[in-house]
Amino acid sequence: MNKINVGVVDTTFARVDMGKAVIHEIENETTKVNLIRYTVPGIKDLPVGCKILFDKEECEICIALGMPGPAEKDKVCAHEASQGLIICQLMSGKHIIECFVHEDEGETSDQLIEICDDRARKHARNVIRLLFDKLWLQEHAGCGIRQGFPDAGTIKS
Amino acid sequence: MNKINVGVVDTTFARVDMGKAVIHEIENETTKVNLIRYTVPGIKDLPVGCKILFDKEECEICIALGMPGPAEKDKVCAHEASQGLIICQLMSGKHIIECFVHEDEGETSDQLIEICDDRARKHARNVIRLLFDKLWLQEHAGCGIRQGFPDAGTIKS
Amino acid sequence: MNKINVGVVDTTFARVDMGKAVIHEIENETTKVNLIRYTVPGIKDLPVGCKILFDKEECEICIALGMPGPAEKDKVCAHEASQGLIICQLMSGKHIIECFVHEDEGETSDQLIEICDDRARKHARNVIRLLFDKLWLQEHAGCGIRQGFPDAGTIKS
Amino acid sequence: MNKINVGVVDTTFARVDMGKAVIHEIENETTKVNLIRYTVPGIKDLPVGCKILFDKEECEICIALGMPGPAEKDKVCAHEASQGLIICQLMSGKHIIECFVHEDEGETSDQLIEICDDRARKHARNVIRLLFDKLWLQEHAGCGIRQGFPDAGTIKS
Amino acid sequence: MNKINVGVVDTTFARVDMGKAVIHEIENETTKVNLIRYTVPGIKDLPVGCKILFDKEECEICIALGMPGPAEKDKVCAHEASQGLIICQLMSGKHIIECFVHEDEGETSDQLIEICDDRARKHARNVIRLLFDKLWLQEHAGCGIRQGFPDAGTIKS
Repeated sequence: MNKINVGVVDTTFARVDMGKAVIHEIENETTKVNLIRYTVPGIKDLPVGCKILFDKEECEICIALGMPGPAEKDKVCAHEASQGLIICQLMSGKHIIECFVHEDEGETSDQLIEICDDRARKHARNVIRLLFDKLWLQEHAGCGIRQGFPDAGTIKS
Repeated sequence: MNKINVGVVDTTFARVDMGKAVIHEIENETTKVNLIRYTVPGIKDLPVGCKILFDKEECEICIALGMPGPAEKDKVCAHEASQGLIICQLMSGKHIIECFVHEDEGETSDQLIEICDDRARKHARNVIRLLFDKLWLQEHAGCGIRQGFPDAGTIKS
Repeated sequence: MNKINVGVVDTTFARVDMGKAVIHEIENETTKVNLIRYTVPGIKDLPVGCKILFDKEECEICIALGMPGPAEKDKVCAHEASQGLIICQLMSGKHIIECFVHEDEGETSDQLIEICDDRARKHARNVIRLLFDKLWLQEHAGCGIRQGFPDAGTIKS
Repeated sequence: MNKINVGVVDTTFARVDMGKAVIHEIENETTKVNLIRYTVPGIKDLPVGCKILFDKEECEICIALGMPGPAEKDKVCAHEASQGLIICQLMSGKHIIECFVHEDEGETSDQLIEICDDRARKHARNVIRLLFDKLWLQEHAGCGIRQGFPDAGTIKS
Repeated sequence: MNKINVGVVDTTFARVDMGKAVIHEIENETTKVNLIRYTVPGIKDLPVGCKILFDKEECEICIALGMPGPAEKDKVCAHEASQGLIICQLMSGKHIIECFVHEDEGETSDQLIEICDDRARKHARNVIRLLFDKLWLQEHAGCGIRQGFPDAGTIKS
């Protein structure tokens, strides 16, 4: 069986190498996937990066990794990148799992690295589920699943 | 007569299973519909989820269920998702009923669950009306109909 | 001569029946138009409502009527709807006259009803002018014409 | 030689007739242009107005004139219109020079009229340069050129 | 071997000539590139400027240089321009490296000029890397690379 191409798009701007964590996680979980990594300068370059992987590299899905800085301007960049990723998905009819970690999400370096690693690995598993195990997702609908933090869980009456 | 495919797209991020409420409501109301459920990780994955159901599963309409968290960042995600759902509708020429409940809409867990259930069921009925009973909608134009809360009603002079 | 199809798209969410005012105004002004009314649940359903009227009902122009609530969240919905209406126009190459009244524009119920009625009727006349009397618009360029309120007028030195 | 069609799109909402200033300026500067004026009700009608001039009237370029009011709501309208103008340009592969004057840019009526006139005339000249004299623009790259106000100039070390 | 066309799109609004710095940097680094400069009036004209270079001048990549002013209104313009640049990239399937310097990023004229020069030259090198040396980018993923300022570096535990 042919392997399925999966794009891993990340940036030189990010201060943690989440692409590496994604690749480890996916290679550890499955042999049915061919990973194509594409590194772009910044977060706003991610949408076209995914577009190129969909169009030129026949990727079936992408994961887009970004790490916006703490300033207000950085929030705007992340917002623009997110809008672009959504439009790219609609143009391609394919999923892009957005995995962004804001630099102010962690209070210490260790905390931030932990969030990045956890979110990257969990979203890597979401990529695999969207390809091979959609039932898992359906069975966890409304379960308050989180990435980067512990699950929030279902709200109980 | 062939059944009409209706997409129910929801998330593992949500903390209440609104998809279940939608499915109960629609199955209770009509036998003319074939429900296709598709669960994605988060709210920003909903637009392409609907696009895939329109393109690959021949859905005539979708309902998109999401539950943004209480933080400012979550509001931005909901905004991006809403924009994507509107663009998806324009690309497909088909309705997506957006049914979002913000986690801060209810003050207690019970209240939040009640809002989710009410909004999901009422919007499920809107899906059915858009398919089979557009006259009901027209007869209630300007009537201040609400989902999740009691109707606001028409403003009287 | 064949009549021209004009779409009137409104919502069950609105608390004043502006569609009725539009229909009265247009029927009173011209017999050259065939009105097609389409009522959707909320303001964010208006863009695809217009798209469907352009594509399936051969409308030459639409008027989109909405009444966002007073909360911040409602302003965001109105913003998303407006963006969608603009994209819909660009995709179709046809005008959609947006006629929104924010629930906090009037201080009393009577005032709000009056604003709705005035804005709906004046924008109904704009629809007619875009179809049959573009010269009127050109002759009033820069004249500070308003809908819902008295004209602001041209600024004099 | 055939004249080049240039669209002048303005609104009845504006309180100063900038279209007139644009037409005077262009007619005074060149005889190689055929001006097509199209007046729409408000600022959010400008994008499709330009689209129609590109598609139906074979315009090579448009200038879009608008005058948003001073309220927060008006700023949002201007933002939506600007986004639409950019999308319209990308769809058409043609320039639209946006010439907006916010009603709160001037402190007195005279000041506001002066800003409108200056910005309209200078942007009219930008239209001509984009058609016939791109070198002028290139030679003034980074020169801090302004419209509506005196040039800011190049920053000197 | 045919040279690759690279677009350099800048504005007359900017107060520093970043286009010149980009051209110096690229001509100094490689002879495999043919530079096409296109100067437009303002930042919101950049997206269609790039679109024209992609469609009419067969550019493989563009760099878009802009310098928004310090006012709130200027931030909105920059946001609209960024959104347009992302949509343009998605339509073309080609990269546009956005190089914006906000006028309030530097406290003195000298500082601002230095930021402009540094960001322009470093982004010029990013253009070259995207064309000829994608491996460099991949090897620097997550390294906290910055333009206009010193690199932030990888976060260490």
